[in-house]
Amino acid sequence: MSVTAPLGFRAAGVAAGIKSGDARDLALVVNDGPSRAAAGVFTANRVKAAPVLWSQQVLAGGRLRAVVLNSGGANACTGPEGFQDTHATAEKAAEALADSAGEIAVCSTGLIGERLPMDALLSGVENAAGQLSRDGGLAAADAIRTTDTVSKISFRRGSGYMVGGMAKGAGMLAPALATMLCVITTDAELTSEELDAVLREATSQTFDRLDTDGCMSTNDTVLLLASGASGVRPDLAEFGEKVHEVCADLARQLLVDAEGASKAIAIEVVGAASEPDAVKVGRSVARSNLLKCAIHGEDPNWGRVLAAVGTTDAEFEPDRLNVAINGIWICRGGAVGDDRSKVDMRPRDVTITIDLSAGTHTATVHTTDLTADYVHENSAYSS
Amino acid sequence: MSVTAPLGFRAAGVAAGIKSGDARDLALVVNDGPSRAAAGVFTANRVKAAPVLWSQQVLAGGRLRAVVLNSGGANACTGPEGFQDTHATAEKAAEALADSAGEIAVCSTGLIGERLPMDALLSGVENAAGQLSRDGGLAAADAIRTTDTVSKISFRRGSGYMVGGMAKGAGMLAPALATMLCVITTDAELTSEELDAVLREATSQTFDRLDTDGCMSTNDTVLLLASGASGVRPDLAEFGEKVHEVCADLARQLLVDAEGASKAIAIEVVGAASEPDAVKVGRSVARSNLLKCAIHGEDPNWGRVLAAVGTTDAEFEPDRLNVAINGIWICRGGAVGDDRSKVDMRPRDVTITIDLSAGTHTATVHTTDLTADYVHENSAYSS
Repeated sequence: MSVTAPLGFRAAGVAAGIKSGDARDLALVVNDGPSRAAAGVFTANRVKAAPVLWSQQVLAGGRLRAVVLNSGGANACTGPEGFQDTHATAEKAAEALADSAGEIAVCSTGLIGERLPMDALLSGVENAAGQLSRDGGLAAADAIRTTDTVSKISFRRGSGYMVGGMAKGAGMLAPALATMLCVITTDAELTSEELDAVLREATSQTFDRLDTDGCMSTNDTVLLLASGASGVRPDLAEFGEKVHEVCADLARQLLVDAEGASKAIAIEVVGAASEPDAVKVGRSVARSNLLKCAIHGEDPNWGRVLAAVGTTDAEFEPDRLNVAINGIWICRGGAVGDDRSKVDMRPRDVTITIDLSAGTHTATVHTTDLTADYVHENSAYSS
Repeated sequence: MSVTAPLGFRAAGVAAGIKSGDARDLALVVNDGPSRAAAGVFTANRVKAAPVLWSQQVLAGGRLRAVVLNSGGANACTGPEGFQDTHATAEKAAEALADSAGEIAVCSTGLIGERLPMDALLSGVENAAGQLSRDGGLAAADAIRTTDTVSKISFRRGSGYMVGGMAKGAGMLAPALATMLCVITTDAELTSEELDAVLREATSQTFDRLDTDGCMSTNDTVLLLASGASGVRPDLAEFGEKVHEVCADLARQLLVDAEGASKAIAIEVVGAASEPDAVKVGRSVARSNLLKCAIHGEDPNWGRVLAAVGTTDAEFEPDRLNVAINGIWICRGGAVGDDRSKVDMRPRDVTITIDLSAGTHTATVHTTDLTADYVHENSAYSS
């Protein structure tokens, strides 16, 4: 399962003492090859954490031997010292693996603006290196949790190869709620360019269409590592599909576990003049606090949907907008449609369908409701 | 006080039975001249309520005899029938005033997507016309409340003239929380072009810099009516200042009474390369749910400030950002600054100062915290 489902990967998750208590807080994922091809996508935030700056630099070479991930501290907004801490982390892992720091990515998540406890972290790296195993994927997935209530793992079988993944962070890539970290592995044989293209395509359709609270993290990272250990050169279309499925599965797990959420809301935009228009409208609706509160209250408040659609510059005529909630078209032609009392708002999954009547393109953006629990969790948790 | 502070204006506020219960829900403001010059600014939402479409059309003539305002229903997303309802409302007021409907603006606020109870509304207009008086400003301000807990009124004295105003709606012009409606009156003598320029300048610096929840209403309207009854041609700079002060005063009242808010947050952006950059950064920070939760929890979480700044394309270098909360510079050079325990988060007013170190321009955006009360109010209230 998880990142060790494909051949050629070992992992470990240990309690390094970065977090208080004895919870796991450090993960190590190692690619034993023969290939080291890799790709990554990172937060679009201009305020980037030290590990993001480091890993972007490392990925420029298109190769990764290992990834060190820690929870308990984001190492963001920590200045040049914070960057040195990330560098030291990579050096420590390189030393333990008798390899080069230049092929070791680092990911961190937790509080912004505090230095990491480097003694604990470096011992943790050494400890994790000693515990690496072919079934360490679950422990690694556990070690990267922050406010996640459960570990997120996924895998898919391709024709002669595997794709596995783990993720954390009740959020999404861009923008992001809490930090989202994700490591995907495969034993298929691909070049870093192929991996990059597949990863960008998959994340743009999955993590990028999750928008739980419109906030973008300083640390979001999604990495894809290929060991080539299966000896199989995959069909690129099939491989892309498998990576997409793993991303979609992990994205769904992130959504369901989003901080304080009680509803999973799919915003399906149809009849758009273009796919970017559909995404734009979906994202705008996903960011309406008023609508998210209404859904929490099980109120099929289509007026708040239209108000959010109206803030975009997508192609549409206000009097041709149709909106269905859970299959009932309660708004037709920009005005009252079917009886709102017919809408069953009780299920956890809520689907809002918006027909722009402007074309044939579609996109779905996923979000959650806005709850008092979200407020409580984020009032108390200093991140 | 309120809209009847200046000479030449009468007003009334009555209970027409649009809302359930016997609360006031209909206001009428009449300009008895001699001048009828007027200007208006409206929501930027492309989904505009019928009264907005109507009033924009009326204002094209630059003259207003009267404004009818109702709470208890937004008359938004109500199709051609809703527009006819607005038209009938203006006709009814015109009949009562023996005047032309083409110089009567209409404003509505309340639920989206429901027709107004026109029998009640039209009787209410007639009733209000019968109760118009020089001291009806307070009753009018009371009648336009929805979730507002108090009436919002303001006035300023110029050199030989007055400026008065009333507003409703814990929100802002663009974007807007609930609907914001505002009527400002003056007995100074100005052309509609002068009023338009003054109003746009004043609202862009006041209501437009309120952002309580990032949501934009379908109904936001700010009107400025001049009776000329004082016979004074004002100095334009002074007049602009007075209108600005009334707008700022009303905006402050809206902020303090925003739905569920427990903190009033001023986001001062300094050192910006341009004023638009400063506004952009201020707005981005004002829309961070994570930050708004942190402030609610009295947590001086500057990391969430930087994360929000980093999502903008304003000119800045991440390692030159400084952030103060309530005067303590807890972030310097994009990293940890002064001791966060020095920040006193207990006062209701919280000031976040962001120094972009990129120039000399500044702007302040006002917002509120995000609370469980906001969630409760907006889960239960179908608007």
